[in-house]
Amino acid sequence: MNPTKNLDSISIVLVNTKTPGNIGAAARCMMNMGLSRLVLVRPPLDRNNEATKLAAGAEEIILKASQFDTLKEAVSDHSLVLGTSRHTSRHRRNIRTPRQMAEQTLPLLSSNKVAVVFGREVNGLDNEDLALCHELISIPASAAFPSLNLSHAVMVVAYELFMATQEELPFFERTLAPAAELENFFEHLQKSLVEIGFVDKVHPEHMMFSLRQLFGRARLDSRDVSILRGVLSHMQRAAKTKG
Amino acid sequence: MNPTKNLDSISIVLVNTKTPGNIGAAARCMMNMGLSRLVLVRPPLDRNNEATKLAAGAEEIILKASQFDTLKEAVSDHSLVLGTSRHTSRHRRNIRTPRQMAEQTLPLLSSNKVAVVFGREVNGLDNEDLALCHELISIPASAAFPSLNLSHAVMVVAYELFMATQEELPFFERTLAPAAELENFFEHLQKSLVEIGFVDKVHPEHMMFSLRQLFGRARLDSRDVSILRGVLSHMQRAAKTKG
Repeated sequence: MNPTKNLDSISIVLVNTKTPGNIGAAARCMMNMGLSRLVLVRPPLDRNNEATKLAAGAEEIILKASQFDTLKEAVSDHSLVLGTSRHTSRHRRNIRTPRQMAEQTLPLLSSNKVAVVFGREVNGLDNEDLALCHELISIPASAAFPSLNLSHAVMVVAYELFMATQEELPFFERTLAPAAELENFFEHLQKSLVEIGFVDKVHPEHMMFSLRQLFGRARLDSRDVSILRGVLSHMQRAAKTKG
Repeated sequence: MNPTKNLDSISIVLVNTKTPGNIGAAARCMMNMGLSRLVLVRPPLDRNNEATKLAAGAEEIILKASQFDTLKEAVSDHSLVLGTSRHTSRHRRNIRTPRQMAEQTLPLLSSNKVAVVFGREVNGLDNEDLALCHELISIPASAAFPSLNLSHAVMVVAYELFMATQEELPFFERTLAPAAELENFFEHLQKSLVEIGFVDKVHPEHMMFSLRQLFGRARLDSRDVSILRGVLSHMQRAAKTKG
Protein backbone atom coordinates (compact mmCIF):
# COMPACT_ATOMS: atom_id res chain seq x y z
CA MET A 1 0.00 0.00 0.00
CA ASN A 2 1.14 3.50 -0.74
CA PRO A 3 2.13 5.03 2.60
CA THR A 4 1.16 8.50 1.38
CA LYS A 5 -2.40 7.36 0.63
CA ASN A 6 -3.64 8.44 4.04
CA LEU A 7 -2.60 12.02 3.27
CA ASP A 8 -5.92 12.16 1.37
CA SER A 9 -7.55 12.50 4.79
CA ILE A 10 -5.87 15.87 5.31
CA SER A 11 -7.53 19.11 4.26
CA ILE A 12 -5.53 22.28 3.83
CA VAL A 13 -7.94 25.09 4.75
CA LEU A 14 -7.10 28.63 3.60
CA VAL A 15 -9.18 31.27 5.36
CA ASN A 16 -9.83 34.60 3.65
CA THR A 17 -6.69 34.52 1.49
CA LYS A 18 -6.19 37.93 -0.12
CA THR A 19 -3.73 37.13 -2.95
CA PRO A 20 -4.98 34.62 -5.55
CA GLY A 21 -1.39 33.66 -6.42
CA ASN A 22 -0.91 32.33 -2.91
CA ILE A 23 -3.75 29.85 -3.46
CA GLY A 24 -2.06 28.61 -6.63
CA ALA A 25 1.35 28.36 -4.99
CA ALA A 26 -0.18 26.54 -2.01
CA ALA A 27 -1.89 24.07 -4.36
CA ARG A 28 1.43 23.33 -6.04
CA CYS A 29 3.08 22.71 -2.64
CA MET A 30 0.24 20.36 -1.70
CA MET A 31 0.60 18.37 -4.90
CA ASN A 32 4.41 18.23 -4.45
CA MET A 33 3.86 16.62 -1.08
CA GLY A 34 1.02 14.25 -1.96
CA LEU A 35 -1.85 16.28 -0.47
CA SER A 36 -5.04 16.76 -2.50
CA ARG A 37 -7.88 18.30 -0.45
CA LEU A 38 -7.99 22.07 -0.57
CA VAL A 39 -10.75 23.95 1.28
CA LEU A 40 -11.27 27.68 0.74
CA VAL A 41 -13.09 29.91 3.22
CA ARG A 42 -14.13 33.27 1.72
CA PRO A 43 -11.52 33.15 -1.09
CA PRO A 44 -10.88 36.18 -3.34
CA LEU A 45 -13.46 36.35 -6.13
CA ASP A 46 -11.03 36.64 -9.02
CA ARG A 47 -8.86 33.79 -8.02
CA ASN A 48 -8.95 31.49 -11.00
CA ASN A 49 -6.59 33.26 -13.35
CA GLU A 50 -3.63 34.12 -11.11
CA ALA A 51 -4.09 31.11 -8.87
CA THR A 52 -4.07 28.73 -11.81
CA LYS A 53 -0.93 30.32 -13.21
CA LEU A 54 1.06 29.77 -10.03
CA ALA A 55 -0.36 26.31 -9.53
CA ALA A 56 1.94 25.23 -12.40
CA GLY A 57 0.29 21.88 -12.95
CA ALA A 58 -1.72 21.67 -9.75
CA GLU A 59 -4.83 23.35 -11.22
CA GLU A 60 -6.78 20.17 -10.57
CA ILE A 61 -6.53 20.81 -6.81
CA ILE A 62 -7.94 24.32 -7.23
CA LEU A 63 -10.77 23.15 -9.46
CA LYS A 64 -11.76 20.45 -6.98
CA ALA A 65 -11.44 22.75 -3.94
CA SER A 66 -14.54 23.09 -1.79
CA GLN A 67 -15.65 26.51 -0.66
CA PHE A 68 -17.40 27.83 2.47
CA ASP A 69 -18.45 31.11 4.04
CA THR A 70 -17.25 30.23 7.52
CA LEU A 71 -14.46 28.12 9.00
CA LYS A 72 -17.01 26.46 11.26
CA GLU A 73 -18.87 25.00 8.25
CA ALA A 74 -15.60 24.18 6.48
CA VAL A 75 -14.31 21.96 9.29
CA SER A 76 -17.61 20.54 10.52
CA ASP A 77 -16.87 17.02 9.20
CA HIS A 78 -13.25 16.96 10.41
CA SER A 79 -12.38 15.32 13.69
CA LEU A 80 -9.13 17.16 14.32
CA VAL A 81 -8.65 20.83 13.46
CA LEU A 82 -5.12 22.22 13.66
CA GLY A 83 -4.63 25.97 13.46
CA THR A 84 -1.40 27.63 12.36
CA SER A 85 -0.25 30.60 14.40
CA ARG A 86 2.70 32.94 14.70
CA HIS A 87 1.41 34.26 18.00
CA THR A 88 3.22 31.72 20.05
CA SER A 89 3.17 33.53 23.35
CA ARG A 90 -0.57 33.83 23.83
CA HIS A 91 -1.44 30.19 23.31
CA ARG A 92 1.94 28.85 24.13
CA ARG A 93 1.03 25.85 26.22
CA ASN A 94 -0.80 24.16 23.44
CA ILE A 95 1.57 24.73 20.54
CA ARG A 96 3.39 22.08 18.53
CA THR A 97 5.93 22.30 15.76
CA PRO A 98 4.89 20.96 12.33
CA ARG A 99 7.24 18.03 12.91
CA GLN A 100 5.63 17.07 16.20
CA MET A 101 2.21 17.57 14.63
CA ALA A 102 3.02 15.35 11.65
CA GLU A 103 4.32 12.52 13.82
CA GLN A 104 1.30 12.66 16.09
CA THR A 105 -1.27 13.13 13.34
CA LEU A 106 -0.23 10.43 10.90
CA PRO A 107 -1.52 7.51 12.98
CA LEU A 108 -4.96 9.18 13.08
CA LEU A 109 -5.37 9.50 9.34
CA SER A 110 -6.66 6.04 8.53
CA SER A 111 -9.91 6.78 10.35
CA ASN A 112 -10.12 10.57 10.76
CA LYS A 113 -10.30 13.66 8.63
CA VAL A 114 -7.79 16.25 9.78
CA ALA A 115 -7.84 19.94 8.82
CA VAL A 116 -4.81 22.23 8.90
CA VAL A 117 -6.00 25.84 8.88
CA PHE A 118 -4.05 28.86 7.59
CA GLY A 119 -5.22 32.44 8.14
CA ARG A 120 -4.94 35.47 5.91
CA GLU A 121 -1.58 36.75 4.78
CA VAL A 122 -0.97 39.59 7.21
CA ASN A 123 -2.92 38.89 10.37
CA GLY A 124 -3.26 35.12 10.39
CA LEU A 125 -6.30 33.54 12.03
CA ASP A 126 -8.50 35.76 14.20
CA ASN A 127 -9.54 34.73 17.68
CA GLU A 128 -12.92 33.41 16.58
CA ASP A 129 -11.25 31.07 14.09
CA LEU A 130 -8.48 30.07 16.53
CA ALA A 131 -11.17 29.04 19.01
CA LEU A 132 -12.41 26.47 16.46
CA CYS A 133 -8.95 24.82 16.38
CA HIS A 134 -8.27 21.89 18.69
CA GLU A 135 -4.53 22.43 18.65
CA LEU A 136 -2.11 25.00 17.34
CA ILE A 137 1.00 24.64 15.20
CA SER A 138 3.73 27.21 14.92
CA ILE A 139 6.61 27.00 12.45
CA PRO A 140 9.99 27.59 14.13
CA ALA A 141 11.59 30.64 12.52
CA SER A 142 14.10 33.37 13.14
CA ALA A 143 12.86 35.67 15.92
CA ALA A 144 14.15 38.61 13.88
CA PHE A 145 11.94 37.84 10.86
CA PRO A 146 9.35 35.17 11.61
CA SER A 147 6.71 36.08 9.04
CA LEU A 148 6.53 33.37 6.35
CA ASN A 149 4.76 33.81 3.06
CA LEU A 150 1.49 31.83 3.16
CA SER A 151 2.48 29.26 0.52
CA HIS A 152 5.85 28.70 2.21
CA ALA A 153 4.07 27.99 5.48
CA VAL A 154 1.85 25.50 3.62
CA MET A 155 5.01 23.94 2.15
CA VAL A 156 6.65 23.41 5.54
CA VAL A 157 3.52 21.76 6.96
CA ALA A 158 2.93 19.64 3.84
CA TYR A 159 6.61 18.65 3.71
CA GLU A 160 6.60 17.50 7.33
CA LEU A 161 3.45 15.44 6.71
CA PHE A 162 5.03 13.85 3.64
CA MET A 163 8.30 13.22 5.49
CA ALA A 164 6.37 11.48 8.26
CA THR A 165 5.09 8.99 5.67
CA GLN A 166 8.68 8.28 4.58
CA GLU A 167 9.85 6.68 7.81
CA GLU A 168 12.40 4.46 6.22
CA LEU A 169 13.57 6.83 3.50
CA PRO A 170 14.34 3.73 1.42
CA PHE A 171 14.87 5.79 -1.68
CA PHE A 172 17.86 7.67 -0.35
CA GLU A 173 19.26 4.98 1.84
CA ARG A 174 22.61 3.54 0.94
CA THR A 175 23.56 0.03 1.83
CA LEU A 176 27.03 0.28 3.28
CA ALA A 177 29.63 -2.42 2.91
CA PRO A 178 29.49 -5.03 5.68
CA ALA A 179 32.30 -4.93 8.25
CA ALA A 180 33.94 -8.12 6.97
CA GLU A 181 34.23 -6.61 3.53
CA LEU A 182 35.73 -3.45 5.03
CA GLU A 183 38.26 -5.53 7.01
CA ASN A 184 39.33 -7.31 3.84
CA PHE A 185 39.77 -3.91 2.26
CA PHE A 186 41.87 -2.59 5.16
CA GLU A 187 43.98 -5.74 5.05
CA HIS A 188 44.48 -5.27 1.34
CA LEU A 189 45.24 -1.58 1.95
CA GLN A 190 47.84 -2.28 4.62
CA LYS A 191 49.52 -5.04 2.61
CA SER A 192 49.74 -2.91 -0.49
CA LEU A 193 50.93 0.17 1.45
CA VAL A 194 53.64 -1.92 3.04
CA GLU A 195 54.59 -3.21 -0.40
CA ILE A 196 55.01 0.30 -1.70
CA GLY A 197 56.92 1.33 1.44
CA PHE A 198 54.36 3.90 2.61
CA VAL A 199 53.61 2.02 5.81
CA ASP A 200 56.14 0.50 8.17
CA LYS A 201 55.95 -3.31 8.00
CA VAL A 202 56.66 -3.81 11.72
CA HIS A 203 54.54 -0.97 13.12
CA PRO A 204 51.75 -0.18 10.70
CA GLU A 205 49.21 0.53 13.49
CA HIS A 206 49.47 4.28 13.77
CA MET A 207 49.09 5.04 10.09
CA MET A 208 46.45 2.36 9.61
CA PHE A 209 44.44 3.83 12.43
CA SER A 210 44.38 7.19 10.68
CA LEU A 211 43.42 5.57 7.38
CA ARG A 212 40.65 3.59 8.99
CA GLN A 213 39.25 6.81 10.41
CA LEU A 214 39.49 8.47 7.05
CA PHE A 215 37.71 5.69 5.15
CA GLY A 216 35.31 5.20 8.01
CA ARG A 217 34.06 8.77 7.62
CA ALA A 218 33.52 8.08 3.94
CA ARG A 219 30.91 5.40 4.74
CA LEU A 220 31.93 3.04 1.96
CA ASP A 221 29.51 0.82 0.13
CA SER A 222 30.44 -2.36 -1.74
CA ARG A 223 30.96 -0.54 -4.98
CA ASP A 224 33.28 1.97 -3.29
CA VAL A 225 35.26 -0.89 -1.79
CA SER A 226 35.54 -2.66 -5.10
CA ILE A 227 36.74 0.56 -6.73
CA LEU A 228 39.35 1.16 -4.02
CA ARG A 229 40.53 -2.43 -4.15
CA GLY A 230 40.83 -2.09 -7.88
CA VAL A 231 43.12 0.87 -7.24
CA LEU A 232 45.19 -1.16 -4.75
CA SER A 233 45.52 -4.14 -7.11
CA HIS A 234 46.69 -1.89 -9.87
CA MET A 235 49.10 -0.21 -7.48
CA GLN A 236 50.49 -3.56 -6.35
CA ARG A 237 50.92 -4.78 -9.88
CA ALA A 238 52.68 -1.54 -10.82
CA ALA A 239 54.98 -1.79 -7.79
CA LYS A 240 55.91 -5.41 -8.61
CA THR A 241 56.62 -4.57 -12.21
CA LYS A 242 58.89 -1.82 -11.04
CA GLY A 243 60.55 -4.01 -8.41
CA MET B 1 25.65 31.89 22.21
CA ASN B 2 23.00 32.06 19.57
CA PRO B 3 22.83 28.56 18.06
CA THR B 4 21.75 29.99 14.70
CA LYS B 5 24.85 32.18 14.49
CA ASN B 6 26.77 29.54 12.55
CA LEU B 7 24.14 29.66 9.81
CA ASP B 8 26.06 32.76 8.64
CA SER B 9 28.62 30.30 7.24
CA ILE B 10 26.04 29.00 4.75
CA SER B 11 25.67 30.51 1.30
CA ILE B 12 22.54 29.95 -0.75
CA VAL B 13 23.72 29.99 -4.37
CA LEU B 14 21.13 30.55 -7.11
CA VAL B 15 22.44 29.70 -10.57
CA ASN B 16 20.95 31.39 -13.61
CA THR B 17 17.55 32.06 -12.02
CA LYS B 18 15.09 33.20 -14.71
CA THR B 19 12.29 34.79 -12.66
CA PRO B 20 13.35 37.77 -10.49
CA GLY B 21 10.43 37.14 -8.12
CA ASN B 22 11.96 33.79 -7.20
CA ILE B 23 15.10 35.55 -5.96
CA GLY B 24 12.99 37.80 -3.74
CA ALA B 25 10.92 34.91 -2.41
CA ALA B 26 14.09 32.90 -1.76
CA ALA B 27 15.61 35.84 0.15
CA ARG B 28 12.52 36.04 2.36
CA CYS B 29 12.74 32.28 3.09
CA MET B 30 16.41 32.69 3.98
CA MET B 31 15.70 35.52 6.38
CA ASN B 32 12.80 33.58 7.93
CA MET B 33 15.23 30.78 8.72
CA GLY B 34 18.19 32.85 9.90
CA LEU B 35 20.30 32.59 6.73
CA SER B 36 21.93 35.73 5.33
CA ARG B 37 24.44 34.96 2.54
CA LEU B 38 22.93 34.97 -0.92
CA VAL B 39 25.15 34.35 -3.96
CA LEU B 40 23.83 34.90 -7.49
CA VAL B 41 25.40 33.31 -10.56
CA ARG B 42 24.27 34.95 -13.82
CA PRO B 43 21.08 36.46 -12.32
CA PRO B 44 18.44 38.12 -14.52
CA LEU B 45 19.40 41.72 -15.30
CA ASP B 46 16.14 43.35 -14.22
CA ARG B 47 15.93 41.63 -10.90
CA ASN B 48 15.77 44.48 -8.45
CA ASN B 49 12.19 45.59 -8.83
CA GLU B 50 10.26 42.33 -8.75
CA ALA B 51 12.74 40.59 -6.49
CA THR B 52 12.57 43.34 -3.91
CA LYS B 53 8.77 43.26 -3.95
CA LEU B 54 8.60 39.57 -3.12
CA ALA B 55 11.39 39.83 -0.57
CA ALA B 56 8.83 41.54 1.70
CA GLY B 57 11.34 42.86 4.18
CA ALA B 58 14.34 40.78 3.16
CA GLU B 59 15.63 43.34 0.63
CA GLU B 60 18.81 43.64 2.66
CA ILE B 61 19.80 40.10 1.65
CA ILE B 62 19.35 40.93 -2.04
CA LEU B 63 21.30 44.18 -1.77
CA LYS B 64 24.19 42.42 -0.03
CA ALA B 65 24.17 39.44 -2.43
CA SER B 66 27.42 38.74 -4.22
CA GLN B 67 27.37 38.02 -7.93
CA PHE B 68 29.49 35.85 -10.23
CA ASP B 69 29.62 34.74 -13.82
CA THR B 70 30.37 31.11 -13.06
CA LEU B 71 29.51 28.70 -10.27
CA LYS B 72 33.18 27.78 -10.05
CA GLU B 73 34.13 31.34 -9.02
CA ALA B 74 31.09 31.62 -6.76
CA VAL B 75 32.04 28.62 -4.62
CA SER B 76 35.83 28.92 -4.78
CA ASP B 77 36.16 29.97 -1.10
CA HIS B 78 33.67 27.36 0.19
CA SER B 79 34.93 24.07 1.55
CA LEU B 80 31.73 22.10 1.07
CA VAL B 81 29.50 22.54 -1.97
CA LEU B 82 26.10 20.84 -1.88
CA GLY B 83 24.05 20.66 -5.07
CA THR B 84 20.28 20.27 -5.18
CA SER B 85 18.92 17.84 -7.70
CA ARG B 86 15.65 16.26 -8.72
CA HIS B 87 17.43 13.71 -10.86
CA THR B 88 17.80 11.23 -8.10
CA SER B 89 18.40 8.18 -10.23
CA ARG B 90 21.54 9.26 -12.04
CA HIS B 91 23.56 10.21 -8.99
CA ARG B 92 21.65 8.10 -6.58
CA ARG B 93 24.45 6.70 -4.49
CA ASN B 94 25.57 10.07 -3.29
CA ILE B 95 22.24 11.73 -2.50
CA ARG B 96 21.04 12.92 0.88
CA THR B 97 17.76 14.39 2.05
CA PRO B 98 17.82 17.99 3.34
CA ARG B 99 17.31 16.61 6.86
CA GLN B 100 20.32 14.32 6.64
CA MET B 101 22.33 17.14 5.07
CA ALA B 102 21.41 19.60 7.83
CA GLU B 103 22.36 17.20 10.62
CA GLN B 104 25.66 16.37 8.99
CA THR B 105 26.51 19.92 7.94
CA LEU B 106 25.82 21.82 11.14
CA PRO B 107 28.93 20.58 13.01
CA LEU B 108 31.09 21.82 10.13
CA LEU B 109 29.86 25.40 10.19
CA SER B 110 32.03 26.80 12.94
CA SER B 111 35.13 26.47 10.75
CA ASN B 112 33.90 26.01 7.16
CA LYS B 113 31.91 27.89 4.58
CA VAL B 114 29.22 25.71 3.03
CA ALA B 115 27.36 26.45 -0.20
CA VAL B 116 23.96 25.03 -1.13
CA VAL B 117 23.44 25.42 -4.86
CA PHE B 118 20.09 25.65 -6.67
CA GLY B 119 19.80 25.48 -10.46
CA ARG B 120 17.46 27.28 -12.80
CA GLU B 121 13.71 26.87 -12.51
CA VAL B 122 12.98 24.29 -15.17
CA ASN B 123 16.11 22.25 -15.73
CA GLY B 124 17.96 22.54 -12.43
CA LEU B 125 21.75 22.35 -12.43
CA ASP B 126 23.50 21.20 -15.59
CA ASN B 127 26.15 18.49 -15.55
CA GLU B 128 29.04 20.94 -15.50
CA ASP B 129 27.65 22.63 -12.39
CA LEU B 130 26.75 19.30 -10.75
CA ALA B 131 30.34 18.21 -11.19
CA LEU B 132 31.42 21.12 -8.97
CA CYS B 133 29.24 19.84 -6.11
CA HIS B 134 30.78 17.58 -3.50
CA GLU B 135 27.46 16.07 -2.51
CA LEU B 136 23.89 16.14 -3.75
CA ILE B 137 20.64 16.83 -1.91
CA SER B 138 17.21 15.86 -3.15
CA ILE B 139 13.95 16.94 -1.51
CA PRO B 140 11.62 13.99 -0.98
CA ALA B 141 8.39 14.67 -2.88
CA SER B 142 5.43 12.96 -4.47
CA ALA B 143 6.58 10.87 -7.43
CA ALA B 144 3.51 12.09 -9.32
CA PHE B 145 4.48 15.77 -9.09
CA PRO B 146 8.01 16.24 -7.77
CA SER B 147 8.80 19.64 -9.27
CA LEU B 148 9.02 22.25 -6.50
CA ASN B 149 9.02 25.97 -7.13
CA LEU B 150 12.56 27.30 -6.63
CA SER B 151 11.78 29.39 -3.54
CA HIS B 152 9.88 26.49 -1.96
CA ALA B 153 12.92 24.28 -2.45
CA VAL B 154 15.05 26.98 -0.79
CA MET B 155 12.52 27.09 2.06
CA VAL B 156 12.71 23.34 2.71
CA VAL B 157 16.51 23.39 2.81
CA ALA B 158 16.66 26.56 4.94
CA TYR B 159 13.97 25.21 7.28
CA GLU B 160 15.88 21.96 7.84
CA LEU B 161 19.08 23.90 8.57
CA PHE B 162 17.25 26.11 11.04
CA MET B 163 15.53 23.10 12.65
CA ALA B 164 18.92 21.45 13.10
CA THR B 165 20.00 24.43 15.22
CA GLN B 166 16.92 23.97 17.43
CA GLU B 167 17.88 20.63 18.91
CA GLU B 168 16.03 21.05 22.15
CA LEU B 169 13.08 22.99 20.81
CA PRO B 170 12.85 24.68 24.21
CA PHE B 171 10.41 27.21 22.92
CA PHE B 172 7.66 24.73 22.24
CA GLU B 173 8.48 22.25 24.92
CA ARG B 174 5.95 21.74 27.66
CA THR B 175 6.91 20.61 31.11
CA LEU B 176 4.41 17.92 31.97
CA ALA B 177 3.10 17.33 35.47
CA PRO B 178 5.25 14.88 37.48
CA ALA B 179 3.77 11.44 38.12
CA ALA B 180 3.15 12.08 41.82
CA GLU B 181 1.07 15.11 40.96
CA LEU B 182 -0.87 13.05 38.43
CA GLU B 183 -1.48 10.31 41.00
CA ASN B 184 -2.85 12.88 43.43
CA PHE B 185 -5.11 14.06 40.67
CA PHE B 186 -6.32 10.54 39.82
CA GLU B 187 -6.96 9.91 43.53
CA HIS B 188 -8.91 13.13 43.73
CA LEU B 189 -10.75 12.18 40.55
CA GLN B 190 -11.70 8.73 41.81
CA LYS B 191 -12.81 10.03 45.20
CA SER B 192 -14.94 12.74 43.70
CA LEU B 193 -16.43 10.41 41.07
CA VAL B 194 -17.34 7.94 43.81
CA GLU B 195 -18.89 10.80 45.75
CA ILE B 196 -21.08 11.74 42.83
CA GLY B 197 -21.96 8.10 42.20
CA PHE B 198 -20.37 7.91 38.76
CA VAL B 199 -17.83 5.30 39.79
CA ASP B 200 -18.50 2.20 41.85
CA LYS B 201 -16.93 2.56 45.31
CA VAL B 202 -15.97 -1.13 45.58
CA HIS B 203 -14.76 -1.69 41.99
CA PRO B 204 -13.62 1.59 40.53
CA GLU B 205 -10.72 -0.01 38.62
CA HIS B 206 -12.28 -0.53 35.22
CA MET B 207 -13.60 3.01 34.81
CA MET B 208 -10.50 4.55 36.38
CA PHE B 209 -8.34 2.67 33.93
CA SER B 210 -10.22 4.22 31.02
CA LEU B 211 -10.01 7.69 32.58
CA ARG B 212 -6.30 7.34 33.19
CA GLN B 213 -5.82 6.47 29.53
CA LEU B 214 -7.90 9.43 28.50
CA PHE B 215 -6.04 11.94 30.65
CA GLY B 216 -2.77 10.26 29.85
CA ARG B 217 -3.25 10.99 26.16
CA ALA B 218 -3.86 14.63 27.08
CA ARG B 219 -0.31 14.96 28.51
CA LEU B 220 -1.27 17.17 31.42
CA ASP B 221 0.98 19.86 32.80
CA SER B 222 0.73 21.32 36.30
CA ARG B 223 -1.59 24.06 35.23
CA ASP B 224 -3.92 21.54 33.55
CA VAL B 225 -3.94 19.46 36.70
CA SER B 226 -4.70 22.44 38.87
CA ILE B 227 -7.56 23.41 36.55
CA LEU B 228 -9.02 19.90 36.60
CA ARG B 229 -8.68 19.65 40.36
CA GLY B 230 -10.43 22.98 40.62
CA VAL B 231 -13.28 21.43 38.66
CA LEU B 232 -13.34 18.39 40.94
CA SER B 233 -13.34 20.51 44.12
CA HIS B 234 -16.20 22.55 42.83
CA MET B 235 -18.01 19.37 41.84
CA GLN B 236 -17.49 17.88 45.30
CA ARG B 237 -18.71 21.00 47.02
CA ALA B 238 -21.77 21.10 44.80
CA ALA B 239 -22.52 17.43 45.53
CA LYS B 240 -22.19 17.95 49.29
CA THR B 241 -24.43 21.00 49.22
CA LYS B 242 -27.01 18.99 47.31
CA GLY B 243 -26.68 16.01 49.68
